[in-house]
Amino acid sequence: MIPPSVIKEITRVVGEDNIFVSLEERMCYGYDSTPDAFVPDMVARPGSTEEIQAIVRLANTHLFPIVPRGAGTGLSGGSLPVKNGVVLDLTRMNRILEIDEENLVAVVEPGVVTYAIQQEVERRGLFYPPDPASLKTSTIGGNVAECAGGPRAFKYGVTRDYVIGLEVVTPRGDLVKTGGKTVKSVTGYDLIRLYTGSEGTLGVITRIYLRLIPKPQSIKTMMAVFPQLDDATRTVTLIVRRGIIPVTLELMDDRTIQCVESYRHLGLPLDAGAVLIIEVDGAPELIEAQSGQIMDLCREGGAREVRVAASEQERDDIWAARRAVSAAVVQIKPTKISEDISVPRSQIPNMVRKLREIAERYSLNLVIFGHAGDGNLHPNILCDQRDREEMERVEKAVGELFQAAVELGGALSGEHGIGTMKAPYLKLETGEAGYAVMLALKQALDPNNILNPGKIFRGE
Amino acid sequence: MIPPSVIKEITRVVGEDNIFVSLEERMCYGYDSTPDAFVPDMVARPGSTEEIQAIVRLANTHLFPIVPRGAGTGLSGGSLPVKNGVVLDLTRMNRILEIDEENLVAVVEPGVVTYAIQQEVERRGLFYPPDPASLKTSTIGGNVAECAGGPRAFKYGVTRDYVIGLEVVTPRGDLVKTGGKTVKSVTGYDLIRLYTGSEGTLGVITRIYLRLIPKPQSIKTMMAVFPQLDDATRTVTLIVRRGIIPVTLELMDDRTIQCVESYRHLGLPLDAGAVLIIEVDGAPELIEAQSGQIMDLCREGGAREVRVAASEQERDDIWAARRAVSAAVVQIKPTKISEDISVPRSQIPNMVRKLREIAERYSLNLVIFGHAGDGNLHPNILCDQRDREEMERVEKAVGELFQAAVELGGALSGEHGIGTMKAPYLKLETGEAGYAVMLALKQALDPNNILNPGKIFRGE
Repeated sequence: MIPPSVIKEITRVVGEDNIFVSLEERMCYGYDSTPDAFVPDMVARPGSTEEIQAIVRLANTHLFPIVPRGAGTGLSGGSLPVKNGVVLDLTRMNRILEIDEENLVAVVEPGVVTYAIQQEVERRGLFYPPDPASLKTSTIGGNVAECAGGPRAFKYGVTRDYVIGLEVVTPRGDLVKTGGKTVKSVTGYDLIRLYTGSEGTLGVITRIYLRLIPKPQSIKTMMAVFPQLDDATRTVTLIVRRGIIPVTLELMDDRTIQCVESYRHLGLPLDAGAVLIIEVDGAPELIEAQSGQIMDLCREGGAREVRVAASEQERDDIWAARRAVSAAVVQIKPTKISEDISVPRSQIPNMVRKLREIAERYSLNLVIFGHAGDGNLHPNILCDQRDREEMERVEKAVGELFQAAVELGGALSGEHGIGTMKAPYLKLETGEAGYAVMLALKQALDPNNILNPGKIFRGE
Repeated sequence: MIPPSVIKEITRVVGEDNIFVSLEERMCYGYDSTPDAFVPDMVARPGSTEEIQAIVRLANTHLFPIVPRGAGTGLSGGSLPVKNGVVLDLTRMNRILEIDEENLVAVVEPGVVTYAIQQEVERRGLFYPPDPASLKTSTIGGNVAECAGGPRAFKYGVTRDYVIGLEVVTPRGDLVKTGGKTVKSVTGYDLIRLYTGSEGTLGVITRIYLRLIPKPQSIKTMMAVFPQLDDATRTVTLIVRRGIIPVTLELMDDRTIQCVESYRHLGLPLDAGAVLIIEVDGAPELIEAQSGQIMDLCREGGAREVRVAASEQERDDIWAARRAVSAAVVQIKPTKISEDISVPRSQIPNMVRKLREIAERYSLNLVIFGHAGDGNLHPNILCDQRDREEMERVEKAVGELFQAAVELGGALSGEHGIGTMKAPYLKLETGEAGYAVMLALKQALDPNNILNPGKIFRGE
């Protein structure tokens, strides 16, 4: 518990209007998109970097946890106050400070919703590619802290590929400025990428410099329908080997298609083994040629049908299917354990086979969808949190699916982070030596373990 | 000095044939492309990761420095044995272990020459873009340790953008495996980017996984001649703002042009204020259109002439000018202090103005060339190391040029690293807080300071 004198002190820093201390209010800041929930001792909503520095200094003196939070949409538990303490709600710091059209850089505060940045830059003919599914809700600070991805990562990369500068409040309350509007820098260790994806455990991000690119001139969207899932994954390889890098190569398996269709009635093929949603962008003449090649390759790979969106409406219809997945799958069972493994592209067929074996062995409902282009699959286990026996099977299955991903040369997480959900499995991938290095970094930068404790490392 | 018993032990590890202990031999491993030279106590040429682990464990027990070294082409002093110790020559570990065409990944040992990787992957229709000027000599291990760049970085990014997995021997002799063939991963802290660019101070890189991309179908190269340097830098902005991202946007100022022409007689315009070498790549129909747009924009920006290479020979002729720069400029004076500042693109004209002011104030010979697209300039001061009075002026000028770059929002190094050369200036850019974080990382991972001591941090 935080002593009343410290609560008073924090209140003085951010103002009466910007704290929450009642149980009802605190409970609203205790959960995210994972099934767990906790209750922080207090919620503070700072309005400036200086206020954050003051609060962090208090935390480092009085040794209470600080849990930075954006919109709380994370899927790995990154913003959960697992050890209570102060939730630092950063959504008041939501200004787009500058869009520098000459240097192609946006300077933003952490609490801006990612979609707001995208709209603002696209209005100027520029483009910020990372597109996590949560982008209309989630904040850029959370995106950076978790290194968010999205479907467009296949062509354009993930959040870390666009962060070129950060301001970060250290656990001692100092302000580190690293990078800025310079696109190319090798001055000492790469603090930008160390903080990006560090899940709020090494510092509180207070300002972000994002690299922008010119907005692609045009887009073409296709949906290819395959009798078997293996045909779809083989087609992914055919496309890549032909030297074509589409923006997206999204996969939905048969169970996912059936869930979405029964939920939204979009006319999806209920007897298909899988569909791929493929999008290309660029100069009109180029994407015309590319989409023709892709259609040919889809047919060569065994597609029985390739639909090409002829209008903005048809494009929306194709994406409506993909966007409906999360809502659709919970119609089967109320609890969704949304995983996020990543394997070398060539291992997708093996991974899918293993996933299905595991689901069958534990009699679980499993749907598979995700970003096939970069080997990042989202196996979702649909279950009921109230059914303890089922949840025990889920836990065993999750352990096995991580094991399988690592055995195939993959990663525990492609874009959601480790948080609380995958902390027990971290060593599977890092080994003892990698774990020791990561823990040494945490202990060196946050010796009192005040920043987002209980994340990434189990039991630290 | 390393005790004879330890030298014997290291000899046992790598074999008699793979050590150098005579002064003549050791001297050969004491210098790089910077003016300084030192003499290591011993040179060991390990042939495997296990041998490296054994040597590093000895270093951590007996507390002597380990200096990893590739081809010794570095421009910041990264491979200099400034505190003596054992130089670890990694050039025996020079195997390309695998080129995985399905996953678009090359797996290589650190001692492979970068150009050898490029030739091998291009034979398969693939592409590894980073192209430091040293690429025909320098090793990929050194490229990763320094996060090398090159002209193509403008479109394709630098070395860090292609490293997706590493094996690294830690200062305790453990082996960390991070990443691999998976392109998308957010498992814990980003150790891949922490080791990339860490200049051999945090671990010895023993295996590298490089992301490959499809080889561009075709290339078009142009040289635009401008009456004034400001016209050239304005043109860079015009091109970028039009949404065109060429592969290269290389700048040479008037002094550079004059040096090159008097050295190579390539028919360069001696009365020009600057030239830009612009290259575009991609589908033939696309680059045809893009090069047309670029020519128009060059004329709009004030170019008095734009030469387009009509053949491979003419392309080579254009690049011959750029490649001759380093050899040409030392014809003026024997010592070349090759700097590597990076500024926001829009600040290039201001930076050039400041550079010329500084050179004039200290009566120094200065040429300016570099990668204008990403704001990375190489101001070279031409001097004579034997002239102590001149070298004092050089030192003052260098300090001021770093100060100027930082004041314009730039970086001390775009692609060469900090090493010994820029260590005295590191805090200018990082500030005290950033410096403290970097030093804490070094101390956490290498508490005995055995790995490449004397680099990045002054006096540690």
